[in-house]
Amino acid sequence: MADDPGAESVARRARMRGRMERLYPIARSLTGDGVRETLQVLAESAPVQTVGVPSGTEVFDWTIGEEWNVRAAYVADASGRRVVDFAEHTLHLVGYSVPVRTRLSLADLRPHLHTLPDHPDWIPYRTSYYHRDWGFCLTQRCLDSLAEGEYDVVVDTTLEPGELVYGELLVPGESAEEVIVTSHVCHPSLANDNLTGLTVAIELAAWISARPHRYSYRFVFAPGTIGVLTWLNRNPDVLPRIRHGLVLTGLGGGGPLVWKRTRHGRRPVDVAASHVVRRLGGEVRAYSPYGYDERQFNAVGFDLPVGRLTRTPHGEYPEYHTSADNLGFVTDDELEESFAALTRIVDVLEGDATYVNLSPYGEPQLGARGLYPTMGGKAATDAVMAMLWTLAYADGTTSLVEVADLADLDFHLIRRAADDLLGAGLLAPADQ
Amino acid sequence: MADDPGAESVARRARMRGRMERLYPIARSLTGDGVRETLQVLAESAPVQTVGVPSGTEVFDWTIGEEWNVRAAYVADASGRRVVDFAEHTLHLVGYSVPVRTRLSLADLRPHLHTLPDHPDWIPYRTSYYHRDWGFCLTQRCLDSLAEGEYDVVVDTTLEPGELVYGELLVPGESAEEVIVTSHVCHPSLANDNLTGLTVAIELAAWISARPHRYSYRFVFAPGTIGVLTWLNRNPDVLPRIRHGLVLTGLGGGGPLVWKRTRHGRRPVDVAASHVVRRLGGEVRAYSPYGYDERQFNAVGFDLPVGRLTRTPHGEYPEYHTSADNLGFVTDDELEESFAALTRIVDVLEGDATYVNLSPYGEPQLGARGLYPTMGGKAATDAVMAMLWTLAYADGTTSLVEVADLADLDFHLIRRAADDLLGAGLLAPADQ
Amino acid sequence: MADDPGAESVARRARMRGRMERLYPIARSLTGDGVRETLQVLAESAPVQTVGVPSGTEVFDWTIGEEWNVRAAYVADASGRRVVDFAEHTLHLVGYSVPVRTRLSLADLRPHLHTLPDHPDWIPYRTSYYHRDWGFCLTQRCLDSLAEGEYDVVVDTTLEPGELVYGELLVPGESAEEVIVTSHVCHPSLANDNLTGLTVAIELAAWISARPHRYSYRFVFAPGTIGVLTWLNRNPDVLPRIRHGLVLTGLGGGGPLVWKRTRHGRRPVDVAASHVVRRLGGEVRAYSPYGYDERQFNAVGFDLPVGRLTRTPHGEYPEYHTSADNLGFVTDDELEESFAALTRIVDVLEGDATYVNLSPYGEPQLGARGLYPTMGGKAATDAVMAMLWTLAYADGTTSLVEVADLADLDFHLIRRAADDLLGAGLLAPADQ
Repeated sequence: MADDPGAESVARRARMRGRMERLYPIARSLTGDGVRETLQVLAESAPVQTVGVPSGTEVFDWTIGEEWNVRAAYVADASGRRVVDFAEHTLHLVGYSVPVRTRLSLADLRPHLHTLPDHPDWIPYRTSYYHRDWGFCLTQRCLDSLAEGEYDVVVDTTLEPGELVYGELLVPGESAEEVIVTSHVCHPSLANDNLTGLTVAIELAAWISARPHRYSYRFVFAPGTIGVLTWLNRNPDVLPRIRHGLVLTGLGGGGPLVWKRTRHGRRPVDVAASHVVRRLGGEVRAYSPYGYDERQFNAVGFDLPVGRLTRTPHGEYPEYHTSADNLGFVTDDELEESFAALTRIVDVLEGDATYVNLSPYGEPQLGARGLYPTMGGKAATDAVMAMLWTLAYADGTTSLVEVADLADLDFHLIRRAADDLLGAGLLAPADQ
Repeated sequence: MADDPGAESVARRARMRGRMERLYPIARSLTGDGVRETLQVLAESAPVQTVGVPSGTEVFDWTIGEEWNVRAAYVADASGRRVVDFAEHTLHLVGYSVPVRTRLSLADLRPHLHTLPDHPDWIPYRTSYYHRDWGFCLTQRCLDSLAEGEYDVVVDTTLEPGELVYGELLVPGESAEEVIVTSHVCHPSLANDNLTGLTVAIELAAWISARPHRYSYRFVFAPGTIGVLTWLNRNPDVLPRIRHGLVLTGLGGGGPLVWKRTRHGRRPVDVAASHVVRRLGGEVRAYSPYGYDERQFNAVGFDLPVGRLTRTPHGEYPEYHTSADNLGFVTDDELEESFAALTRIVDVLEGDATYVNLSPYGEPQLGARGLYPTMGGKAATDAVMAMLWTLAYADGTTSLVEVADLADLDFHLIRRAADDLLGAGLLAPADQ
Repeated sequence: MADDPGAESVARRARMRGRMERLYPIARSLTGDGVRETLQVLAESAPVQTVGVPSGTEVFDWTIGEEWNVRAAYVADASGRRVVDFAEHTLHLVGYSVPVRTRLSLADLRPHLHTLPDHPDWIPYRTSYYHRDWGFCLTQRCLDSLAEGEYDVVVDTTLEPGELVYGELLVPGESAEEVIVTSHVCHPSLANDNLTGLTVAIELAAWISARPHRYSYRFVFAPGTIGVLTWLNRNPDVLPRIRHGLVLTGLGGGGPLVWKRTRHGRRPVDVAASHVVRRLGGEVRAYSPYGYDERQFNAVGFDLPVGRLTRTPHGEYPEYHTSADNLGFVTDDELEESFAALTRIVDVLEGDATYVNLSPYGEPQLGARGLYPTMGGKAATDAVMAMLWTLAYADGTTSLVEVADLADLDFHLIRRAADDLLGAGLLAPADQ
């Protein structure tokens, strides 16, 4: 990528990594201070606004619940040694555990302890949002090491009226038409799911800000489901302006890029993202009503053109929702490739257009207009072919990304060809 | 299938088998007493009406011919021993053989004897409807054993003005709209082709009668081509009410289920039957203008949405139209699976509908409405997924069977999800 | 093919071969006497008209350049021996070489000498239409044999105001609607590219002339790009009458037949040619804006339904644009098969039509109308099946070639079936 020299990439990798390292230890959940702290970290890189909505607020079919915070949570043996401690890993406490302070035999404690027998060194991730309960998650190896006897259990949490908090960042463009990009912010110490989405989204916002762009880009960092529904509920004026949308999550962790289509399946964002993802060796999948927040945007009442970009999707890798989804599970190369894919998708959304050929009676003389490359080789051949394809389909109905797919050439080659042809007076925008 | 406990299945298998055993020895043809006798056997299980139409009646491009009956037919050697005898197997006589009483040398007899040299123990099935002739079918082994010498030939048949006879059974439903189910009744002692179609059709009629149903179901048991054309000719008032149709034949005899599409290819009955057959591991094929009576229904003048359900289609198994298509060639398991497929197709035809989501702004709270299964496991997961898919596509245009195909779930799961969602006030019929 | 007995084929092969042998030595280019001479050879077989358009004439975005002719061109060593001589092979001189008469050392000469190191015995084909230069093409082996020393270079060419010349042949039909067939005429001694196109086109014209036909067929033999654009420029009245078009080139040289679709992809000529080419084991490819003169016809301003028939396309065989594309590279069998494919495509274009079934209520009695074959075997089965398919889809919207594709039968069988059914009063044209 000519506009992304090596030094810039190196700096971006460092920023993405550093941001993930700072976010990783924070205890996030649907509500609570962890989300506020996370948004503050993001706000150091970009003007992310924090929005709080009070508990009890009705949000379509839902109501915002009480806010959950954790002061401390541990299990200690008779000697006082803390054998499981939330202070050591945020996954140790089942999300939304209610307060408890008691002493139990190991036998009575066991039903509250969750492990992964098949992965004895991994801590599972569990929540109990809708059923009032408490519990601890630990490694099987730790559980096996516990002696019989009495254990002190302390869950010092609060579940009280407060707020649901989300972050919002608007990068204004020439037009009031918007592209929405969302990333969920409600998972505790899980790197791929979804610190990758957050850190790449911040870089994408910076990249877009630094160059002219047509659309306004709105980044929403919200807790899953209820958080995004809250945003949807509070922004009825924005919804009609949304032209394209992307949910970002799991952008590291191995595997090729995967675009999950919108419910309609052939929205412009699907064409753009499919073009880019396929050319990068990735995969395009049909819509399904499970997954991340694309479910809410695509609900029949909103019907917004929002797809999802991931690498290997949730549930298809063993580290998913365990402590093995840690900072080591995500590589800088993966993040950088995911970032690059997103910039290419944005390039298509920004640059796609439809033209009419102003010299439509046979092929025009390209050489006479200085459009023939002076050097040979594959790049020159591609450049000439890109011009021929663009002229051949400048019929007022076929857009450039469709031409790129027909030609089996990267969009940026077709876009550059169209620019050269526009410069030579051989093309005009279709709607003029 | 919850509504089909084991005992019911056992009883049905016994009934299907018993009915086939009674029908097998009867000498059926396009016309004649064999058809009447067959319809009487069927009428013992269901109120099948017999309709007779006189010879000479014009039926579209055709005319009903004379009625053919057989009193006796045999070949006897010089000692009087009957070496081939219609009384032993109905296939021994070429269908529509004209009367003859003569003595011939083996050499002169040979042109009238038909065998299957590649299957020396099988008797072929032959007819001569349109060319006045006579002949016998026998095993190659029997032919090889015949000594030179004179043979007495007796074909004591009649070909006289009479009737073409067909059976009809109407199972009325809430609506005057009809589903037509036909099965040909003109083949002699051939089990798969088509005693299977007859015996399964009778069970299907009984099964439908025993439960509420929207459509009226009309079963027609008619001789092939001319018989169905006669029915079509006499029922111009019924034709506009036909919404779906199925031709049933070859429902045993091995191989997976095969749905042959209507000529248009994507009629509702095609969608329903393809869904069911594919989920049972079967096969869906394009329309072609040869085969059974689907040819008549799909003719451009009628253009009725009638497809065909078989297992391995005619001509694709060696036993086809030979004495090897006997009662042992058809298993009870095959009949029961074919029956079950038909009930599932009927369930789709009856239960398919289109809905609108009444809580369309994001996913509604299923748990708050008691819609989340209390138990875990695959059944619970499927039930939840079925609700999510149904809500996601309750857009007023996608029908439940289309949702089932998108979701890759059985129709009955989607139908049950829709019922649950209707009960919870989350859906409404699309046309209200 | 019943209408093409062996003797006719033998005579045609001889004519095609003889014509190629006479055309092969002629020095053709975009302009010059070689094209005139070529058109005179073609005019011996058919009334091909020669059209000349003066240098300087504007043709859409182009201008007809000066006419190029060669009197002599050679390189001679110090002894006077001509080591490379245009008189020996027309490929030896780079096309459009400007005049030069000089003496150069081998070192100074080398930049003007072109070889194919990977094929040391082949002479490459080079032109320099748009960049004023001169050069010679020779075998690598010849170059390697040249001693150091001085060489006399003579390029005795003229580049002067003159004409661009093309040929045109109209075979009138019952209708003013036209089928256009073009073949480029600007390549020097290259057999497959494109003496094959020329010689087969002449035979096709003769074949069409000899039988009744609906369309008028216009054959254009023009230099590539500028020649066809000149024809397009001078015939604005003809363009609206063009219904179908074929570019012919590379009809020998191995490989299966290849149909390259029109830009729209599903024009009637695409359906016809795809049917024929696929049934002959050939290949159908998508449109692309490179290749031969289909590029000009399909340009958005003309948008004419013109596809291309070749065997292995240009650039995909090593002999392409070298002296190895000689008369031995093309076999008579290939030419004859290409010819036969074209006649079959013409048969589809001429014979395709849409009918309505006049006996649409079920299958009509074919036997009663004498339409059943009296003999058995595959031909008889195909004939009956062709009638059944034709009747089944005589719905007023499906054309015969579409029926042939559905039925997986050759068009001529469906056409014959339709003729038989028309004769029996069972079909009528759809638009009456």
